[in-house]
Amino acid sequence: MSEICSKYELDTPCLVLDLDKLDANLTKMQGRAREAGKALRPHAKTHKCSRLAKLQIEAGAIGVCAAKLSEAEALVEAGVSGVLITGPVVGVGKGRRLIALLGRDPGVLVTVDHPEVVRRLAIAAEKAHLVVDVLVDIDPGSFRTGVAPGNALGLGRLVASFASLRLRGVQSYAGHVQHIVGFEKRRSASLAALSEAVTAFRAMRSISADCDIFTGAGTGTHAIDMTIPEVTELQVGSYAVMDADYSRIGCETNAACNDEFDFALTLLTTVVSTNQEEFVTVDAGLKTIYVDNSAPYPVKKELAHLHYSWFGDEYGKLSVSEGGPIPELREVVELVTSHCDPTVNLHDRFWLTRGDAVVGEWPIDLRGRSQ
Amino acid sequence: MSEICSKYELDTPCLVLDLDKLDANLTKMQGRAREAGKALRPHAKTHKCSRLAKLQIEAGAIGVCAAKLSEAEALVEAGVSGVLITGPVVGVGKGRRLIALLGRDPGVLVTVDHPEVVRRLAIAAEKAHLVVDVLVDIDPGSFRTGVAPGNALGLGRLVASFASLRLRGVQSYAGHVQHIVGFEKRRSASLAALSEAVTAFRAMRSISADCDIFTGAGTGTHAIDMTIPEVTELQVGSYAVMDADYSRIGCETNAACNDEFDFALTLLTTVVSTNQEEFVTVDAGLKTIYVDNSAPYPVKKELAHLHYSWFGDEYGKLSVSEGGPIPELREVVELVTSHCDPTVNLHDRFWLTRGDAVVGEWPIDLRGRSQ
Repeated sequence: MSEICSKYELDTPCLVLDLDKLDANLTKMQGRAREAGKALRPHAKTHKCSRLAKLQIEAGAIGVCAAKLSEAEALVEAGVSGVLITGPVVGVGKGRRLIALLGRDPGVLVTVDHPEVVRRLAIAAEKAHLVVDVLVDIDPGSFRTGVAPGNALGLGRLVASFASLRLRGVQSYAGHVQHIVGFEKRRSASLAALSEAVTAFRAMRSISADCDIFTGAGTGTHAIDMTIPEVTELQVGSYAVMDADYSRIGCETNAACNDEFDFALTLLTTVVSTNQEEFVTVDAGLKTIYVDNSAPYPVKKELAHLHYSWFGDEYGKLSVSEGGPIPELREVVELVTSHCDPTVNLHDRFWLTRGDAVVGEWPIDLRGRSQ
Repeated sequence: MSEICSKYELDTPCLVLDLDKLDANLTKMQGRAREAGKALRPHAKTHKCSRLAKLQIEAGAIGVCAAKLSEAEALVEAGVSGVLITGPVVGVGKGRRLIALLGRDPGVLVTVDHPEVVRRLAIAAEKAHLVVDVLVDIDPGSFRTGVAPGNALGLGRLVASFASLRLRGVQSYAGHVQHIVGFEKRRSASLAALSEAVTAFRAMRSISADCDIFTGAGTGTHAIDMTIPEVTELQVGSYAVMDADYSRIGCETNAACNDEFDFALTLLTTVVSTNQEEFVTVDAGLKTIYVDNSAPYPVKKELAHLHYSWFGDEYGKLSVSEGGPIPELREVVELVTSHCDPTVNLHDRFWLTRGDAVVGEWPIDLRGRSQ
């Protein structure tokens, strides 16, 4: 790679990470958390990269979150500390592997949302002579994981009843609220979603002296949730690299566009076929870019007349509107991604840039770790 | 892995490949092609696995197709011969790498859909003292890649004018026709889509004695396109492993369900959260299974009351209908995938099974090769 100097010489399609923008995003979120008196434990499910996780910790984060056990294993293997597994660790062989992971790093935090999971974990931990830090996952109305708030205290009591478990607090992540368009709508929805978990957390603190963690919030609600006194830490993910979908939801100071964080992550794609008059075909299809609520769009303002849409597994369509010039064959177009998390998961590396210069690469070492 | 004997003991989510069903699918398609006097060059973009490609060649295929240059590189590296690159090879560094690949395996076939691509390839091939086999890609109305049929002969003449290129024929793949529901509708659409390419191919044969390849067809149209005398080979992909979407389109003998090929590929997912009455949460989300036109569904008939739907990047929802029993925590459910190609691309390996027994694994070594 030593001969490459410009990102426009990279083989496409590929992901590019602008280090200056990334640094600015990490610094801004860390500063906000600090001002609000909250800890930051960013979610690594977004970037799937232990090098980026370490940068977040260098910037002041107390650790990172992992959605799945296999992500946590890769993070611990890479020397990342303070890992919180936000999803349920349930399945054949998972318990044994979790205990092995806790043996390597007893600082790993685990969430639970079912008495059976608590009992199995307690027995396995006892056998391994471990004391495991446990958070009760409280459902804020996503209905995806977590106990109903009314059942949280009961599950917390069960956790506290085992000598091999330490009740450290609660998790309540309102995934369904993160992408609500409009800051005020999102504010009322998020405060309402978390209110019962706050009540449950207060009650839980009275049964365990170790109960000092309330983790939640995403990029969409971090500015809202950090106003809740009981929330102790934020598990924001997308802010680090940003995407089109988190842009369109708006922020407190800009209703049209959430411009508090910059697009550190972009995707380069090449025009590979030009036989039509109103559009061209590019080499990034759904095996390269995950498109959901918001379409990807060109970074450069002079290319704002180009609109990306689906064109099969291997290709995208760049349509031309407003009489703008049609891209030429071999032209490289830089796109803001639609949904960063699943797009990152399609790639093996980030190319690192400063300005247009490629300055290195990071392996996306958690890529594909869905177990 | 030696201690695992049942697929239900595998870590989930994961992909499982039933070798008996796979063998039956490969044998059936190969037999049909043989009976019709056509060659088979199956598309490796579906399975992304050089081991599976070799099995297809052992079953009688003359080679395999690759959508992208980087797939072709991996196939040649793995010792797979008869590789046809179905997509345009355009972009920084791509020409140099293509020539290097052709140097390693001069049997690799290349498609072109633009005079500039032809000229660049001709010059590079001449410098490398290579003669490259070239197909003219003719657009059958997908508008994605390929020249308009009326421009095909002209591009063919350009190819034939270079001593470093050998005009071998045409490609016309009607991707937009493959998923039309109903065999008769699909038949008329496919025959209409390919008719102009057939005319162009006839004309092209008169300008080159080497012009002996007409490649096209997918799983949805193979039975139709093999009735076209000019078609010489089929680039079918999904038939090998099948998915829910190719099932719902119906076939000649069964309008409701394309049951000619069996579901060799399935996905195992575990119930990880059970706090709701009408659904449970499983560990396969959109980073594990790509869902488009048809939802994944359980393989076992006794689980037909379970319906998979999206539940975020990491999770799926299994809803219960018709008063059927709700799955238990830790239960493993085997799903027919929605769209096999992009789902396979999310995984690193196929677990190989005979019945319920795990008998090995194959790396999905072309995974992520989108360049």
